[in-house]
Amino acid sequence: MMRHDGRKFDEIRPITIETDYLLHPEGSVLISVGNTKVICTATIEERVPHFLRGGGKGWVTAEYSMLPRATGQRTQREATRGKVGGRTMEIQRLIGRALRAVMDLEALGERTIWIDCDVIQADGGTRTASITGAFVAMTLAIAKLYQDKDLKRFPITDFLAATSVGKSNEGQLILDLDYVEDSEAAVDMNVVMTGAGAFVELQGTGEEATFTRQEMNELVTLAEEGIHQLFAVQQEALGLVGQMIRQKEEDPS
Amino acid sequence: MMRHDGRKFDEIRPITIETDYLLHPEGSVLISVGNTKVICTATIEERVPHFLRGGGKGWVTAEYSMLPRATGQRTQREATRGKVGGRTMEIQRLIGRALRAVMDLEALGERTIWIDCDVIQADGGTRTASITGAFVAMTLAIAKLYQDKDLKRFPITDFLAATSVGKSNEGQLILDLDYVEDSEAAVDMNVVMTGAGAFVELQGTGEEATFTRQEMNELVTLAEEGIHQLFAVQQEALGLVGQMIRQKEEDPS
Amino acid sequence: MMRHDGRKFDEIRPITIETDYLLHPEGSVLISVGNTKVICTATIEERVPHFLRGGGKGWVTAEYSMLPRATGQRTQREATRGKVGGRTMEIQRLIGRALRAVMDLEALGERTIWIDCDVIQADGGTRTASITGAFVAMTLAIAKLYQDKDLKRFPITDFLAATSVGKSNEGQLILDLDYVEDSEAAVDMNVVMTGAGAFVELQGTGEEATFTRQEMNELVTLAEEGIHQLFAVQQEALGLVGQMIRQKEEDPS
Amino acid sequence: MMRHDGRKFDEIRPITIETDYLLHPEGSVLISVGNTKVICTATIEERVPHFLRGGGKGWVTAEYSMLPRATGQRTQREATRGKVGGRTMEIQRLIGRALRAVMDLEALGERTIWIDCDVIQADGGTRTASITGAFVAMTLAIAKLYQDKDLKRFPITDFLAATSVGKSNEGQLILDLDYVEDSEAAVDMNVVMTGAGAFVELQGTGEEATFTRQEMNELVTLAEEGIHQLFAVQQEALGLVGQMIRQKEEDPS
Amino acid sequence: MMRHDGRKFDEIRPITIETDYLLHPEGSVLISVGNTKVICTATIEERVPHFLRGGGKGWVTAEYSMLPRATGQRTQREATRGKVGGRTMEIQRLIGRALRAVMDLEALGERTIWIDCDVIQADGGTRTASITGAFVAMTLAIAKLYQDKDLKRFPITDFLAATSVGKSNEGQLILDLDYVEDSEAAVDMNVVMTGAGAFVELQGTGEEATFTRQEMNELVTLAEEGIHQLFAVQQEALGLVGQMIRQKEEDPS
Amino acid sequence: MMRHDGRKFDEIRPITIETDYLLHPEGSVLISVGNTKVICTATIEERVPHFLRGGGKGWVTAEYSMLPRATGQRTQREATRGKVGGRTMEIQRLIGRALRAVMDLEALGERTIWIDCDVIQADGGTRTASITGAFVAMTLAIAKLYQDKDLKRFPITDFLAATSVGKSNEGQLILDLDYVEDSEAAVDMNVVMTGAGAFVELQGTGEEATFTRQEMNELVTLAEEGIHQLFAVQQEALGLVGQMIRQKEEDPS
Repeated sequence: MMRHDGRKFDEIRPITIETDYLLHPEGSVLISVGNTKVICTATIEERVPHFLRGGGKGWVTAEYSMLPRATGQRTQREATRGKVGGRTMEIQRLIGRALRAVMDLEALGERTIWIDCDVIQADGGTRTASITGAFVAMTLAIAKLYQDKDLKRFPITDFLAATSVGKSNEGQLILDLDYVEDSEAAVDMNVVMTGAGAFVELQGTGEEATFTRQEMNELVTLAEEGIHQLFAVQQEALGLVGQMIRQKEEDPS
Repeated sequence: MMRHDGRKFDEIRPITIETDYLLHPEGSVLISVGNTKVICTATIEERVPHFLRGGGKGWVTAEYSMLPRATGQRTQREATRGKVGGRTMEIQRLIGRALRAVMDLEALGERTIWIDCDVIQADGGTRTASITGAFVAMTLAIAKLYQDKDLKRFPITDFLAATSVGKSNEGQLILDLDYVEDSEAAVDMNVVMTGAGAFVELQGTGEEATFTRQEMNELVTLAEEGIHQLFAVQQEALGLVGQMIRQKEEDPS
Repeated sequence: MMRHDGRKFDEIRPITIETDYLLHPEGSVLISVGNTKVICTATIEERVPHFLRGGGKGWVTAEYSMLPRATGQRTQREATRGKVGGRTMEIQRLIGRALRAVMDLEALGERTIWIDCDVIQADGGTRTASITGAFVAMTLAIAKLYQDKDLKRFPITDFLAATSVGKSNEGQLILDLDYVEDSEAAVDMNVVMTGAGAFVELQGTGEEATFTRQEMNELVTLAEEGIHQLFAVQQEALGLVGQMIRQKEEDPS
Repeated sequence: MMRHDGRKFDEIRPITIETDYLLHPEGSVLISVGNTKVICTATIEERVPHFLRGGGKGWVTAEYSMLPRATGQRTQREATRGKVGGRTMEIQRLIGRALRAVMDLEALGERTIWIDCDVIQADGGTRTASITGAFVAMTLAIAKLYQDKDLKRFPITDFLAATSVGKSNEGQLILDLDYVEDSEAAVDMNVVMTGAGAFVELQGTGEEATFTRQEMNELVTLAEEGIHQLFAVQQEALGLVGQMIRQKEEDPS
Repeated sequence: MMRHDGRKFDEIRPITIETDYLLHPEGSVLISVGNTKVICTATIEERVPHFLRGGGKGWVTAEYSMLPRATGQRTQREATRGKVGGRTMEIQRLIGRALRAVMDLEALGERTIWIDCDVIQADGGTRTASITGAFVAMTLAIAKLYQDKDLKRFPITDFLAATSVGKSNEGQLILDLDYVEDSEAAVDMNVVMTGAGAFVELQGTGEEATFTRQEMNELVTLAEEGIHQLFAVQQEALGLVGQMIRQKEEDPS
Repeated sequence: MMRHDGRKFDEIRPITIETDYLLHPEGSVLISVGNTKVICTATIEERVPHFLRGGGKGWVTAEYSMLPRATGQRTQREATRGKVGGRTMEIQRLIGRALRAVMDLEALGERTIWIDCDVIQADGGTRTASITGAFVAMTLAIAKLYQDKDLKRFPITDFLAATSVGKSNEGQLILDLDYVEDSEAAVDMNVVMTGAGAFVELQGTGEEATFTRQEMNELVTLAEEGIHQLFAVQQEALGLVGQMIRQKEEDPS
């Protein structure tokens, strides 16, 4: 089977991560996964939300948005509608939760990392691209913090990346769905993994359809293969900073 | 290992489903899963949302809420706050999506099924109890519709139920977490399955933690066992109506 | 004249009050007035609203809501609409005001009692059922507080209950209107009274109609008779706790 | 007893009603009741709300607001807060309901009368002043409509006015409370009556206090006396238009 | 050319400023510019917004609103819509900014002046009438403050007034546009000036049209002439208080 | 005087306009003015707002937003706050109004051009950069429309660009203020001009300061010089499409 854009079933789209994309944020990237482009920034705030105060631990939270013309049809701004929609909330909760899995919140101390993922062009997989890019932006911000402040230890414990896999209407299992594939998919699964190969999040969803246990396992295998390629791109983007994380993995403390 | 309430690791809490719980709705139940109690109702509206008009297909949508004192601490009403929170949105999107997987939207015709899940007492697992109860309420409403209207075929294609599984802080895998267990769990997974044993939704989440592929498989096995017990309770609650679904399973058309 | 459900003009519907209906709240009941069913809970918060701080007095406030399918037609959730409607506001202000009339706010000390009335099934008289049920829930909560804390005196000063009376379209005066009667009534009057027979609230409203002074007096007499029957049900539900209030009445301090 | 402003217990404040106060509205007045000043306008819209369409009947609805500095302390604008408060909703529902009692909605035809009551200076009794003034503004607008359009009959059936009575902290019953009296009152009662002497609305409220049946009757008598004086001011303000209503009263059709 | 209301191109409408129009505010006026009528009030609050705390300087902020029937067609209330519109925001930001230009914020100390401009009748030029009237209301409030408190110096540094000029569809330049002229104008310019003849704000706007540099200069000249007449009305309204400002101008400190 | 970044008083920052920056919109650019970067898109919708329907004319409307980390400090999202702020409203009204001045709305026909300006990096002058960039995006979209549809004539009548000028705290007049200069400026003026040299918008504002008539004229001269350089960049970016506008200017029809 050939996919509509010529990819093989287990082939991810070209990925680039441009670091320090913006002037002001402590960490920022422009990540491109095929035609999907997301600006991810990380901001460090020297305090934590109310429910964590005085506990010595930090927090990571995320917000996600799309430019109105990131999409083929113009999408109304959530600011204009006066409220954040259900899909946006679901995605930003996912991003925050995923990143917290590789953050040593005690080492971070009473600080909040604000992650902002703004999709400037959407072609499927915006939430997984956001996680993959946000990890790099967050790591850049933490590296600066680690140089400036007296942290006990480097607070990022492992690499983290995400991709989607799915089952097409014809029953074909495929890796890294673009918008056309995603719209037609019977099953859609988002997988978030750490560099050590553990799962952080696994969200498989049948859209008016179901999947068997065997398909579940094949999809997960496909996702694992894709995510390993993402780790390589992240490592290249991070350069020396990436070393600190690899040392962690070898010698976690 | 003994769980804090005396259950074995693979033991679900006592389940009861009281059908026709309310006077007005087309279908309604009070489902109790241990101390978690949810009123689920199904309303049939003779029209579909704007994006489906004229296509001959129906829709299933869900709303979820908790009474302020369903919880140990009083929770502020979302009506008072003026907006529906992220957690609520995530849950109501999940419930609607899950139910659509066993609804033959063409057989339903241009109608909307509104599912309302109102938690009157919460002790963990409110979203999975909502799905399990809402399936019964929806089936009751559809059975009345099927008697009154000239539907091509019975539009519910299979049973549907959900439970949660998780990994405790000590690494123990357990079935059907209550509130205390859920608060302390390292990994939490919600599983929605059909009577035929296929997955509709699989949401595994590490809370500042991760899980291995082997754990994923063990958790899924545990969930499958629990859900089979839920199907039995649903069948008993539905009585003869349940027969129509079982015939479907055997002879899908 | 026979009413549509067979009642006499001065006959109230069957009343039951199930105490400690929920696990978590300090006080809770399920009150049924005919087919109208309301869950009333009382929560004690150890602080007062801003405008009362430092004055040594407490506060009682109430919120009211209906499940979407409490009614014959599904009602849109106020959380979804993003705002609390005028009718709801009017009712919750009434409930709070009524309960404060029998609360010794000084004896309560700087605490807030949150009353939540959630109508799970509506058949007329939801606001008066809410007041009658909320009084019991509040008293249960206060009784626990009185045991645990060093209050100067028992802070509930008297019983409190409410009913509705009305003038039908044919000019008949009737007690305890159900939904059908309420929809057709020319005049509707809600009466809140204390055990000592004093009025707390009297709201007579002509719906595109008026009432004479003589009718006013006859309606009030009818309400008084109904409310005395409610006091009996409250006393039975409260058991020994009710004694403390009766002592108050005899020997107010 | 002498009241703080020198009035007798059964004395209303000076009333003036300035008709055609504004240039644009179909009907408008500035009503002053002592220092309370309200601009009341009536707007005629040639359609009815959705729930009345096609029924041949009209509607009357009201909105109420206060300028931020109508009060001694600046009150935040409801537009700035982004929502209309409970007190405002309660008042605007009351005004609309009261005016509908003297409006022959069939004679009005499928039109909506929008009443706007904007308090520019508040010194107690703003809701009753709004009703009394709005009746005149509405009548002026209807008189113009009656001249221009082919209405079956003059649609206002009677005069309508409102006042407040109350019981002071010392137990004195008084008529037409100003702000100081209202703040201290134990019981507050708003009474809306028609020219024929029938009640439209009777709202007696104990503020952490109660009232006996005898007090209820004495308060109502006091209110009746006050409202008769308001009718005289309304008649003078309306001049010839007032005649049409008086003819109605004598010969209702 | 004769304007539709008989005015010459450089003639402003009759202006009156009624001071101390309301009982409660520290400063208040009713300003009439032709048929445009605005109630302007000034409230002094003994604290500043968060971003200014501890800096020793004060603040001036403004809110603007129109009664629903200030206009020919009824305008929906912003409180009912649940949000303040763009035009309102633009105007209230303009009023606040303009007034701050003649306020010595250090002399004011850590206080906020709240300006409220409520248009009760609109016939063009409501924002410039608001500025002209608000200046007088603010000055009255400051004069009282200056008497009561130990301010270093009188904090209003100069007179301030505003008018509009425009280019008609036929290319005629005119002063002080009323509603009819404003609706048809090709170019509209609002000018805010100080007593010393300096500009505070200059907002020239082509409505689907443009203006040349020469027209800009002629419009500004016209505005200057109009504003000088407004200063005379302000001085008369302020009486002796106006003296304090004139001394400032001569001997600024 | 040397400016803090080495520019001369009458020197604009380097400008680039990257056309067709995004895949989906009908027209899009990334405009950079120094460190200020704005994505401007134009969307063509085949209908007009309600108030224009049936009149045969089109409309241009704009929305403006900033990414949270476009700024040095993270700015809270307006979607999260649930409302669009005053500054944003003011800017988006300005952008829409400015673009309409060079749009022949009749030639456009009953279509709406939606302009979206999203600031991804802010360093002063975001509103003028938005106008300058949006003009190019709109022209690109119109050029495609002109090729595809049977428009009577090319509907853009002239070039349009904007810049800011200001007076520094030391009294120096400067062109194209960056963020540092803007924060400290005593007077700030935004100027929007057409290719023919006419003004569309002129907004001069003293920030707790004023400006004389002579300064006004010098500032306008400075702005004119700057805008002429912007026209050159726009023409280069538009290439052949720019020719169609230049023909218009020479031979307007």
